[in-house]
Amino acid sequence: MHRYNAPLKDMKFLRATLHKERTDELDMVLAQAAKFVEQELVPINHLVDQQGCQWQGGRVDLAPALQTAIKRYVQAGWMGVTQPEKWGGQALPASIGAFFGEMVSSGNPAFSMIPALTMSACKAVSGFASDAIQQQYLPKLVAGEWTGTMCMTEAHCGSDLGLITTSAAAIDDTTYAISGTKIFISAGEHQASGNIIHLVLARIKGAPAGVKGLTLFLVPKFLPGSKQINNVACIGIEEKMGIHGNPTCTMAFEGSTGFVIGRANEGIKAMFSMMNEMRLGTSLQGVGLSEVAFQYSYQYAMQRKQGKALGRSESSLDAADALIHHADVRRMLLTQKAFAEGGRALCQYCAQLLDQQEQGGATGKDAEKMLGLLTPIAKAFLTESGLESVKDAIQVHGGHGYIRESGIEQVYRDGRISTLYEGTSGIQALDLLGRKVLGDQAKTLLRFTKEIHVLCMQILLSDTCSAELKALANRLHPFAKEWPALARQVGMKALQDHAEVGAAAYDFLMYSGYVTLGFFWLKMAQTASTLESTEFSAAFLSAKLKVAAFYYDKVLPRTLSHQAAIVAGKEGVLSMAADEWVG
Amino acid sequence: MHRYNAPLKDMKFLRATLHKERTDELDMVLAQAAKFVEQELVPINHLVDQQGCQWQGGRVDLAPALQTAIKRYVQAGWMGVTQPEKWGGQALPASIGAFFGEMVSSGNPAFSMIPALTMSACKAVSGFASDAIQQQYLPKLVAGEWTGTMCMTEAHCGSDLGLITTSAAAIDDTTYAISGTKIFISAGEHQASGNIIHLVLARIKGAPAGVKGLTLFLVPKFLPGSKQINNVACIGIEEKMGIHGNPTCTMAFEGSTGFVIGRANEGIKAMFSMMNEMRLGTSLQGVGLSEVAFQYSYQYAMQRKQGKALGRSESSLDAADALIHHADVRRMLLTQKAFAEGGRALCQYCAQLLDQQEQGGATGKDAEKMLGLLTPIAKAFLTESGLESVKDAIQVHGGHGYIRESGIEQVYRDGRISTLYEGTSGIQALDLLGRKVLGDQAKTLLRFTKEIHVLCMQILLSDTCSAELKALANRLHPFAKEWPALARQVGMKALQDHAEVGAAAYDFLMYSGYVTLGFFWLKMAQTASTLESTEFSAAFLSAKLKVAAFYYDKVLPRTLSHQAAIVAGKEGVLSMAADEWVG
Repeated sequence: MHRYNAPLKDMKFLRATLHKERTDELDMVLAQAAKFVEQELVPINHLVDQQGCQWQGGRVDLAPALQTAIKRYVQAGWMGVTQPEKWGGQALPASIGAFFGEMVSSGNPAFSMIPALTMSACKAVSGFASDAIQQQYLPKLVAGEWTGTMCMTEAHCGSDLGLITTSAAAIDDTTYAISGTKIFISAGEHQASGNIIHLVLARIKGAPAGVKGLTLFLVPKFLPGSKQINNVACIGIEEKMGIHGNPTCTMAFEGSTGFVIGRANEGIKAMFSMMNEMRLGTSLQGVGLSEVAFQYSYQYAMQRKQGKALGRSESSLDAADALIHHADVRRMLLTQKAFAEGGRALCQYCAQLLDQQEQGGATGKDAEKMLGLLTPIAKAFLTESGLESVKDAIQVHGGHGYIRESGIEQVYRDGRISTLYEGTSGIQALDLLGRKVLGDQAKTLLRFTKEIHVLCMQILLSDTCSAELKALANRLHPFAKEWPALARQVGMKALQDHAEVGAAAYDFLMYSGYVTLGFFWLKMAQTASTLESTEFSAAFLSAKLKVAAFYYDKVLPRTLSHQAAIVAGKEGVLSMAADEWVG
Repeated sequence: MHRYNAPLKDMKFLRATLHKERTDELDMVLAQAAKFVEQELVPINHLVDQQGCQWQGGRVDLAPALQTAIKRYVQAGWMGVTQPEKWGGQALPASIGAFFGEMVSSGNPAFSMIPALTMSACKAVSGFASDAIQQQYLPKLVAGEWTGTMCMTEAHCGSDLGLITTSAAAIDDTTYAISGTKIFISAGEHQASGNIIHLVLARIKGAPAGVKGLTLFLVPKFLPGSKQINNVACIGIEEKMGIHGNPTCTMAFEGSTGFVIGRANEGIKAMFSMMNEMRLGTSLQGVGLSEVAFQYSYQYAMQRKQGKALGRSESSLDAADALIHHADVRRMLLTQKAFAEGGRALCQYCAQLLDQQEQGGATGKDAEKMLGLLTPIAKAFLTESGLESVKDAIQVHGGHGYIRESGIEQVYRDGRISTLYEGTSGIQALDLLGRKVLGDQAKTLLRFTKEIHVLCMQILLSDTCSAELKALANRLHPFAKEWPALARQVGMKALQDHAEVGAAAYDFLMYSGYVTLGFFWLKMAQTASTLESTEFSAAFLSAKLKVAAFYYDKVLPRTLSHQAAIVAGKEGVLSMAADEWVG
């Protein structure tokens, strides 16, 4: 079976492309992380899928190998690696955390959700909880002794949190009794940590309907110091397509003691600070899907011989050529590579914005806005392209890809969740076009397209850039105008009818994703053609230029069809009458 | 869970669109078939997935419910429904068989492969075997007392049959001892029929290398009259992503007695007669995927309330709108519906060609050619679009789509095989562009684009056609020129370098698929706007026009990106050097 190689060299290249400074120390941290992933997480990935989780009478047992891996991860100090030193973390920047997150999620997705959710819980607690709660919970969470969950979804509401009915009855000013049932709670119950800290969205009795009446509560499985369970129980786990190693729990709260995080009725704000973090985390999972898909496909295509490749003269002596020589297999491999490396660049850019945002001030505000624009693109586009990559990986394997033994079969099943959780692609698309573009009068979009414009002009006006690079810049440049123009066009129509936004949103998001990756591929091609460094082989650097050229030739033109669909407007989508669907 | 409704009304509509005559008798057969599928096959589909198959010491047991269903199917006389009367069949035309096949595959894909393979075996036997063998085997196969398999793939060769090493040693002129191991043999062993008839591709000792040295053999599990197994054993079954109900067997032949079917070293010809049948069968599975995806999505979208739909004024009193009111959900539903109904039309057209081909003569020859052109399009495009439909069905369900209980999770897993078996999409693409278009100097393609041209002109020059219909014809018409022009362009480049064919093939196939469905949607829209019949409600007919308009607005523009990718040529795909893939 396939062996995952953490893409450390590409991560190094991205830091050369996007960062000013680099330190050897951070290189070493990443190398250590890669070693942990390759040695501890990858080898158990298939086993954990086979063993799944056991639920019995409220108790959930993880696969033993997964439980051990969590222990080792915590012991090695990886849990709080990006958290502040005052809580016991190592205060690594988000930009390093992003690389780390991608590797963990690539190596073992069922495992990766546990640290990801724990770190999101830290985010909400450190951003919104009282000092007392921070001091009580953060050191334990950062150390990994306790783990965290996010409890939002109920049976009747997923995307629409306004419908939440879990209730909170006041005990005192900050303490409430929480009652209600939450579904789809990843790692809601297990034996791998001493305590489980649930962050629960609930409605204080008498609060307004809708999202404006929601409050975020911290509900621990065990109240600190107590050995008695805080009236919270896992009443079942789901059978699902994949991610079998991670228990998807139905959690019943029955008067559980919960502490307000942030202010009453402002829970959605605190929840969104977690959610944005999780969305960026999911975009890393999308990149990992493309990376793993590429690695599987490449390895298989190198060793599997099948058919003579058209037009390949040097193959005449063999009975069959390796798949890698077949043009259509190359098309799939290059698409995967373009999505993986282009997506990694987008994620790294987002992570840098996160670091800038943390520093506050005007730059921090700008970074926050830009991150707001790019997060739905990264979440939806990189997971959608991740699904395509894995689908194609199975295609490269032919019938063997459908067989469990191939390993890629599991990647396909595990990966399918990525366009669903933390907001479906449709939800991201509405967030992007409705809130982040039209709701902002396209100001942030224009800042981003200005970056595209500047990069293109820099290349086009340069005396030293190659004709190749200029050709790419020439092809990207028109998008700097076309993209905001499309937004404006939808915006004008939407003044008449808001439905235009919904009808255009998905195509607008996909269009945005292709252009955004076009921007990062141009940036990488520029670096590759100008970098003076002995760290990267000539082959590595020339590959960047070739994959960029492939992306511009074969993938970027997909904007054409999305543009046509955006321009077509709502009519085709909305004209069906109720009795026409099933005639 | 979802209840499948066989799309009888749409089938009736297609017969009104594409056929000259119709009989009530055939309507009744289809209604009976639908009843069998809905009552016997659909209810056990999920159970059969859960139970899978058991292999022990060479014996394979199907899920008991599946075994019973096969028995009932045979008893009710469905097995040989399209076979000649002289073998005990009912001699129904292929066009009816196609509707039937779609229903069976939609209702229970694991089941459907057993009759499909048995009928393919009949095809090879009736087309190529001696009279004696026909008389010995066909009545049993047609009655369903015996079932058939197709044994081609070996561990080292799937797409590339030329590498087959299974050998045949002569016993007499037509009898051979077959030795070798075949993998991925669907229903290669089970207890649901009295005998299993394997059609095995093997190489007679001393025969030429490559496909020109392959001969097709009939190898029964039991030689007629004998109770001893014919030295053939199932040595294992695969664990796979889906289709758990159907055992995927590794079959070991150890000097098994086999009878030549057709002539020595011409096995590939006989095999292709089965293969083409299976490819059309797989395209029906693709249509079924889109149909089932639509039905699941529609039912869920009608009952699940989530979020307020943008621009929907009449919803102001509800806390949330049903998903069906959200534009992006409608986009997915309409895409599924467009693929299902457009794909059904294409399949029906192919089935009619099959009926014409059977009748022989010049018309038969023309039909055969056209079928040759359309088969790879139908196989690859309809399964690819089927996968998209099912992916979107999960998207409509949100997180619930990932849960086994939803049912759509199984459809997604089961459906994934469709773009792989009977030739991957890449293989179909090479067959289309290389053999069926360029190898034919585009003659048959030009015959088909002439049909497009004629239909468009008929509408555009008509005094009675609506402006709506004319607008569609106006949009389709340019493709009648553009499609062969693209083929010509690739053909010219291919004169210099055959690799251009491989680099363009997949995009050319997808482009062809979108245009082909555009043609059938125009045809259906024409019928819907002119049909004088009380059999179809006004809502049914107006829906046809609306889905056609949606397809032209939102789906047909995908040709733009495929066209750009075709025109871009091989450079982007083939320039990577060996050391550049992993730098």
